[in-house]
Amino acid sequence: MVILVLNCGSSSIKYQVIDMEDASSKLLAKGIVERIGLPEGDLTHKPVGKEPFELHQPIPDHTTGIKLVLDALTDPAHGVIASLDEVKAVGHRVAHGGEFFPESCIVTEDVKAKIRSLFEIAPLHNPANLEGVLSIEKVLPGVKQVTVFDTSFHQSIPAVNYMYALPHAYYEKYRVRKYGFHGTSHKYVAKVGAELAGLDFHNSRIITCHIGNGGSVTAILNGKSYDTSMGFSPLDGLVMGTRCGQVDASAITFIGEKEGMSYAELNTMMNKKSGVQGLTDISSDMRDIDRAYDEGNPRAILARDMYYGRIKKFIGEYAAEMGGVDMIIFTGGVGENSCEMREAVCTGLEFMGVKFDPAANKGARGVNKILSAADSKVKVATIATNEELVIATDTYNLVK
Amino acid sequence: MVILVLNCGSSSIKYQVIDMEDASSKLLAKGIVERIGLPEGDLTHKPVGKEPFELHQPIPDHTTGIKLVLDALTDPAHGVIASLDEVKAVGHRVAHGGEFFPESCIVTEDVKAKIRSLFEIAPLHNPANLEGVLSIEKVLPGVKQVTVFDTSFHQSIPAVNYMYALPHAYYEKYRVRKYGFHGTSHKYVAKVGAELAGLDFHNSRIITCHIGNGGSVTAILNGKSYDTSMGFSPLDGLVMGTRCGQVDASAITFIGEKEGMSYAELNTMMNKKSGVQGLTDISSDMRDIDRAYDEGNPRAILARDMYYGRIKKFIGEYAAEMGGVDMIIFTGGVGENSCEMREAVCTGLEFMGVKFDPAANKGARGVNKILSAADSKVKVATIATNEELVIATDTYNLVK
Repeated sequence: MVILVLNCGSSSIKYQVIDMEDASSKLLAKGIVERIGLPEGDLTHKPVGKEPFELHQPIPDHTTGIKLVLDALTDPAHGVIASLDEVKAVGHRVAHGGEFFPESCIVTEDVKAKIRSLFEIAPLHNPANLEGVLSIEKVLPGVKQVTVFDTSFHQSIPAVNYMYALPHAYYEKYRVRKYGFHGTSHKYVAKVGAELAGLDFHNSRIITCHIGNGGSVTAILNGKSYDTSMGFSPLDGLVMGTRCGQVDASAITFIGEKEGMSYAELNTMMNKKSGVQGLTDISSDMRDIDRAYDEGNPRAILARDMYYGRIKKFIGEYAAEMGGVDMIIFTGGVGENSCEMREAVCTGLEFMGVKFDPAANKGARGVNKILSAADSKVKVATIATNEELVIATDTYNLVK
Repeated sequence: MVILVLNCGSSSIKYQVIDMEDASSKLLAKGIVERIGLPEGDLTHKPVGKEPFELHQPIPDHTTGIKLVLDALTDPAHGVIASLDEVKAVGHRVAHGGEFFPESCIVTEDVKAKIRSLFEIAPLHNPANLEGVLSIEKVLPGVKQVTVFDTSFHQSIPAVNYMYALPHAYYEKYRVRKYGFHGTSHKYVAKVGAELAGLDFHNSRIITCHIGNGGSVTAILNGKSYDTSMGFSPLDGLVMGTRCGQVDASAITFIGEKEGMSYAELNTMMNKKSGVQGLTDISSDMRDIDRAYDEGNPRAILARDMYYGRIKKFIGEYAAEMGGVDMIIFTGGVGENSCEMREAVCTGLEFMGVKFDPAANKGARGVNKILSAADSKVKVATIATNEELVIATDTYNLVK
């Protein structure tokens, strides 16, 4: 069954086309539409086994962008399917499912209404995600659609960990609470990692570190998310590329007052101008920070130490919450590729049973590999995440 | 040497009179002036070995309040000294020393100017603290004064732990960073606890939990504060009586926007209407929460679980930061008296070497006592804090 996986952002559409069967999956093509709504848009299409294909033209809206993707998929030269009839379902990544969606689901009018009702608390992502759903309704009418939420996996988190100690009325009125994100990735790598280490996923304590330009750490107790470092929004928790993560909220109101900034301006500052970018004024990309670090730049040293240190803090916090940990997993752009990060984070965790293997870690990039010594009580691994595969699998299982 | 210890709040003055010698100290009297500036003020004076004494009259300002204290100290019936000449020095608790004061110091014009320069970042405490200094200058001219800062002990925290991942300019411009508070208490109980457990304070990893209506947890590495849970202000970290502690900052800007609240109103909400009070709408006092918990009140159960859980998280975090922990110490109103809290927090920490002794814990209130089993790798203790004694000792050492 050919499934189109879509991840619609405000000005972009990432896609993959995956042929799913019960026990296997085959990637047919992937690509990205960028600069939607700008004078000049781009499509980059990468069919498996064929030459990549690029297109540059104005792309006024998501519907136009999706039409271009469908044209590319059926193009005689660059295409991977003979006809659009082959696309049996579309799976969408949706950022915020609020308290409505503990699982992926088939799109209905009710589902769309609920995604819309969450615009207020996910203004950057949910509108674009819904736009993708509505566009598919126009250009592929009748094709079943499935929504897979970044928050679903974390709906198992107990109230003791998802509530903030704010006046209870704000939870009742606005559902202000921790939601958590990257759920699809945390769940996927935890399952794959548990299998790699020979652990029973449903009877284990796993800490997954999804570390990239955005990042979060999740405590997974007996197969269910028990706590996670992102919160009401994807701002909280780790030091990220441009996001501040944990900060004393009174420091934010202080800055807002002193600088005469609006709440929207504060949000922009915390989300777009903070993190390693804000600390260094060099870059939001850890590869650039690594270079500056190696050159001895003091700000880069501070930023990298903070970026690494915050990950370690959450591992300690979640080990304490779960009464110990059986496995620590690294994934995401930095998690899968930065040997330095993994070694720095795991060094000093011997007291909780971690025996890191620097030799196994060395050069391990983009692979699934155990990084702890054979006799390590706590297993450590790097696992390559694949959120698109989870979306395709959930979609397949719901529509088959 | 008779030393007057003062802790001036915006509408109150707590005091102790302590007779200090090199190797000993003797409490002569303590008391409190309340409702300064209100139509009716109160003085409660408790001389050691004499009947307590109360006074009710308007107390328009701190100078008047301090005069009443001095009158009580020398009163033939309720007094403890023959003449004010006996008071050789006054030690003040000052909330915020910013980056200026890594240690206690004798008051000079420069010290006063620096305390004043911190009004902006400590608007609730520093003005009243300075008011106390200025009042003593008026009523006891020539007597040496010492300021002891809540932040001093934490000035050893390294940048990796005190910086926020915000734009660096806000640190340069306003010194927005983590300061930490309760330093006097954390240092005192760590020293006393290390001695009780036979640890070398200067070669140990200690986690101190000062738990009361306000509360903070501190990581003490080799005798120096290495990290602490309060931040730029005393808002951050633990769930407290009326303070929210850690929260996603974007949840705060969201609430501000939705409710049309000013920054000042947000600060009031986070500092005065949150914590267990905000979660339960019952009380900010853990004794009331305990009663409601025992009655099965769901909100009280949630609030207490969060209050306890947050302490445990910080213990895990700081153990990870220090590469393990040798001793965990509980102090403060709740820390010294709540057997339930200590047991709940320590249960599940076996993975890091804690072997808690519930029998030793049972009934241990307001004492200095080891609460871990004899073979516990990590020692656990409750230690009665005594901030006034530290202030008197620092004052004595500086003026003798």
